[in-house]
Amino acid sequence: MEFQNLLDDIVGSIKPRLGEGNVANSIPELAAVEPNQFGISVATREGEVYSSGDSETPFSIQSISKVFALALVLARDGESIWNRVFREPSGNPFNSLVQLEHENGIPRNPFINAGALVVTDRLLSVSAGEANGVLGLLRDESGNAVLQVDTGVAASESRHNHRNQALAHFLASCGNLDNPVDDVLDAYINQCAVSASCTDLALASRFLAANGARRDGAALLDPHQTKRINAMMVTCGTYDAAGEFAYRVGLPGKSGIGGGIIAVVPNYCAICVWSPRLGSSGNSIAGVAALDEFTSCTGLSIF
Amino acid sequence: MEFQNLLDDIVGSIKPRLGEGNVANSIPELAAVEPNQFGISVATREGEVYSSGDSETPFSIQSISKVFALALVLARDGESIWNRVFREPSGNPFNSLVQLEHENGIPRNPFINAGALVVTDRLLSVSAGEANGVLGLLRDESGNAVLQVDTGVAASESRHNHRNQALAHFLASCGNLDNPVDDVLDAYINQCAVSASCTDLALASRFLAANGARRDGAALLDPHQTKRINAMMVTCGTYDAAGEFAYRVGLPGKSGIGGGIIAVVPNYCAICVWSPRLGSSGNSIAGVAALDEFTSCTGLSIF
Amino acid sequence: MEFQNLLDDIVGSIKPRLGEGNVANSIPELAAVEPNQFGISVATREGEVYSSGDSETPFSIQSISKVFALALVLARDGESIWNRVFREPSGNPFNSLVQLEHENGIPRNPFINAGALVVTDRLLSVSAGEANGVLGLLRDESGNAVLQVDTGVAASESRHNHRNQALAHFLASCGNLDNPVDDVLDAYINQCAVSASCTDLALASRFLAANGARRDGAALLDPHQTKRINAMMVTCGTYDAAGEFAYRVGLPGKSGIGGGIIAVVPNYCAICVWSPRLGSSGNSIAGVAALDEFTSCTGLSIF
Amino acid sequence: MEFQNLLDDIVGSIKPRLGEGNVANSIPELAAVEPNQFGISVATREGEVYSSGDSETPFSIQSISKVFALALVLARDGESIWNRVFREPSGNPFNSLVQLEHENGIPRNPFINAGALVVTDRLLSVSAGEANGVLGLLRDESGNAVLQVDTGVAASESRHNHRNQALAHFLASCGNLDNPVDDVLDAYINQCAVSASCTDLALASRFLAANGARRDGAALLDPHQTKRINAMMVTCGTYDAAGEFAYRVGLPGKSGIGGGIIAVVPNYCAICVWSPRLGSSGNSIAGVAALDEFTSCTGLSIF
Repeated sequence: MEFQNLLDDIVGSIKPRLGEGNVANSIPELAAVEPNQFGISVATREGEVYSSGDSETPFSIQSISKVFALALVLARDGESIWNRVFREPSGNPFNSLVQLEHENGIPRNPFINAGALVVTDRLLSVSAGEANGVLGLLRDESGNAVLQVDTGVAASESRHNHRNQALAHFLASCGNLDNPVDDVLDAYINQCAVSASCTDLALASRFLAANGARRDGAALLDPHQTKRINAMMVTCGTYDAAGEFAYRVGLPGKSGIGGGIIAVVPNYCAICVWSPRLGSSGNSIAGVAALDEFTSCTGLSIF
Repeated sequence: MEFQNLLDDIVGSIKPRLGEGNVANSIPELAAVEPNQFGISVATREGEVYSSGDSETPFSIQSISKVFALALVLARDGESIWNRVFREPSGNPFNSLVQLEHENGIPRNPFINAGALVVTDRLLSVSAGEANGVLGLLRDESGNAVLQVDTGVAASESRHNHRNQALAHFLASCGNLDNPVDDVLDAYINQCAVSASCTDLALASRFLAANGARRDGAALLDPHQTKRINAMMVTCGTYDAAGEFAYRVGLPGKSGIGGGIIAVVPNYCAICVWSPRLGSSGNSIAGVAALDEFTSCTGLSIF
Repeated sequence: MEFQNLLDDIVGSIKPRLGEGNVANSIPELAAVEPNQFGISVATREGEVYSSGDSETPFSIQSISKVFALALVLARDGESIWNRVFREPSGNPFNSLVQLEHENGIPRNPFINAGALVVTDRLLSVSAGEANGVLGLLRDESGNAVLQVDTGVAASESRHNHRNQALAHFLASCGNLDNPVDDVLDAYINQCAVSASCTDLALASRFLAANGARRDGAALLDPHQTKRINAMMVTCGTYDAAGEFAYRVGLPGKSGIGGGIIAVVPNYCAICVWSPRLGSSGNSIAGVAALDEFTSCTGLSIF
Repeated sequence: MEFQNLLDDIVGSIKPRLGEGNVANSIPELAAVEPNQFGISVATREGEVYSSGDSETPFSIQSISKVFALALVLARDGESIWNRVFREPSGNPFNSLVQLEHENGIPRNPFINAGALVVTDRLLSVSAGEANGVLGLLRDESGNAVLQVDTGVAASESRHNHRNQALAHFLASCGNLDNPVDDVLDAYINQCAVSASCTDLALASRFLAANGARRDGAALLDPHQTKRINAMMVTCGTYDAAGEFAYRVGLPGKSGIGGGIIAVVPNYCAICVWSPRLGSSGNSIAGVAALDEFTSCTGLSIF
């Protein structure tokens, strides 16, 4: 399928909606972004890339990093992570401690913060001595060797991080962290603070549309592991709006409060959209609308 | 695709697992079923039917009825039901009151008991004077005009029903039931107590694989409503194991404690499996295993 | 101590506050009461009675009945009730289902609704064939043989009772009711709907200030059981404001949404105040203020 | 009243029970204590001291410190602390985050860990430049100028402190800590790690039996504040067993996992018991039994 005209059309039709919602204000660096930007990129399994709008502008990937951290842990360590984190929807806010306490420190899934901290802890343990975990994977798969952690964002998140510290110490109190709390939080913050563009992330997510095959053809994940991540993105990828996203978009997806969303058409292509203003559930308003239009026009929904 | 050989193979490969798990014992009538039965049926969008094993034996459809009740309410009343029930995974047991109290009597989704009671209440309101709501739909779509409510099951459930009565009175206390509590509970129990076979249910579910088109070609639902139900079956259809089911089977599905499961390959076919023994999450063990084998062999997963 | 002047003074000093708060509106019959009434009565252990204001006007005793139901069960059946209800503060609203579900149907204490339903159920079981449980006790101890259930209040509560029905059915679903749900609810509603005056209730509560001795000198409870009830009134007697009541009043107390409060000075006297307007915690504003003044002036606090 | 014979009798009658329960094992230093010790001391309002058993052996005061921290904050800063912490029973474990999250970071009372952290934070703010907050008060009131923090206990608690760190960071994330999290935790840990004997603590608690008057006659608290603390000890002083303690002992009390318990007979005397083995609620088994015997023999219960 040739996507260029469609992406250009989407950029046009989304423009009137770019004023809706609010930019994340948890840290000043995120709040300072120019709010009315929008970009979209598609990377097909065969390697074609289409993009439109502000598709080359780097943004803070935030929780989108959780997908890549999980992929690396599955790639390097197999299924043992599932002894430490469940795989079910939580029905609770992404940073809640309530369910974690009721369930003795086993997070519901790897895409809520507590679960991502456990995944990051395991990634640290199985990647000893390696400099770049998630960042390295993103560089390799995007082909963009200059991707970086935004150190301003990372430093600011370190200073405004009490809720994640509470989660991490709670996990530690339950024996569900192996590394020192501060090390886990540093690694987690750095992952979230990577800056990448829509095109970078569409390319980096392509293995999820390719049965786990990397850019160079080598297997990052086996097909079952890839299916697992896609399934989990449907049930748990978009905070408290997974049901709504599944209905409107009909694709596996993972959002971040930087305004980015990756989505996957299994066996076909990966998509990344970005627009900073968020709705009440923490997902990019224009991003969800763009993905809705994309699947409506192409019929590329899984449902 | 020609499914007969595959279904016969599945019957053979499932046989050694038929002793795993336990039959539901919430009421004596369900507990009395011969436990080691297994059936499977596939109904394609075009109208072909394939089946094997105990595919013609009627069983108690139980929570599978929630899909048909929701479809009828959407068909007759449109989207207003979403003012009274959310569309997100609950992360809590299917009969829990905790989340319902925290969220002021708005159930998380139509497939937990509280949500289904609200849907049933609405169905009563919009079907005044009509004898057979869900049962009528099942008869029409299956072409089996003698489908019946198992009055023994219904009577027994009326006597062992305190938890659902608690849910219904709680909903009423929040103003989220329009009809008398006893009427809603009666209608709900009767829906759940319909007896139907795998073939009946595969045929009756076919509209979910056909953009909402009924057996006679008329529209029951529009394509968006159909997609909505399929999406909700992925995120909320199998109790606390939606994530696991999405991974292993990779299809929208809805289970019942009678041991039946319906699953949908969008735009292609509907499947029904049945085997009475349940796993810890309340889903049929052999049924899930059979669907896993079905999607592994055919590649007909949505992920 | 001679209390008459003090009670008259309190009536005077409370008058300016009689417009604060709102009358309970859960049922029309309670909402219809003339709101600016206030009464107070004191009954000493030795049998003296002092009263002032609207002390002879009957009002709906509502949750104050829970104390008398508990006393009767302890008197007739001893301590076995504690296998079915805990004795600790709940930290949750009086009609909450959340904690009850987390704790498998064992209510936190006998003064929240769920606990009182269990106590009432046991009272039914141990009082078979007896016409008047709580009402009979109130008549005997107050010496007022014409005390009655207000049938209008009872009938209205039967029609506006979904929350208690939810609690009762939940208890039944956990196996913590022996009698039919409707029988328990009827008995509970009738207890709550007794009409009695401040003087009636001060006299009827006197056994709590007399080591369990009845008006005629016979033992209703032993001293340990009496201490138990007084202790529980301090920790659990005034809804979510037990801590505040303990601080301001410093006496064991039990309130009802009819605006009555009974309080006990152990080994000395029982007090009843009444004024219909309630604060946000469901306790009579003027009633608490009057008890505060009473203990401040007399020094009769337990702290 | 002359208490010496009674205390000696209690030491004798408690001896057979000294093997029940288990010493706290949250840190090695607490677990290492000789378990079968028992001490009791009474300090009357007039200044008489009676003691028996291991009454002069220092032990880790742990949560008993919360009473003294609260008294200091009330003494120095008045009632403003109540804007940041509630005064009601929690109905939840002492180190729970569930209720704290539901109630937006306002702890239920000053005697659960979260509430004590807020009190300690305020104490730091109003005691800038002062070396010894709680320790200084304990030295002054006990007259034992060599009371010390057990630095081994403090250091060990700093290393095994994830749950309190989680609570503190959660409070900080809600804006309910003014000082740096680490400073608050250090101060909290040091308070808890003070070593003192039964006689030290009975003397130090005497102001609670003296309308707030210190050893030297000066007012630490006014009578209302004193009553407030005593009332809160009844409703919230003994973890999840406040109701049971109120019934069995019938006095305001505060326990610690070091095995100590202080109790107050208002206007008469303060008592401290100590024995390291704890029951399932975290209160000293022999300590509660000794207080039960004390109030049964003397009739000095508030109920």
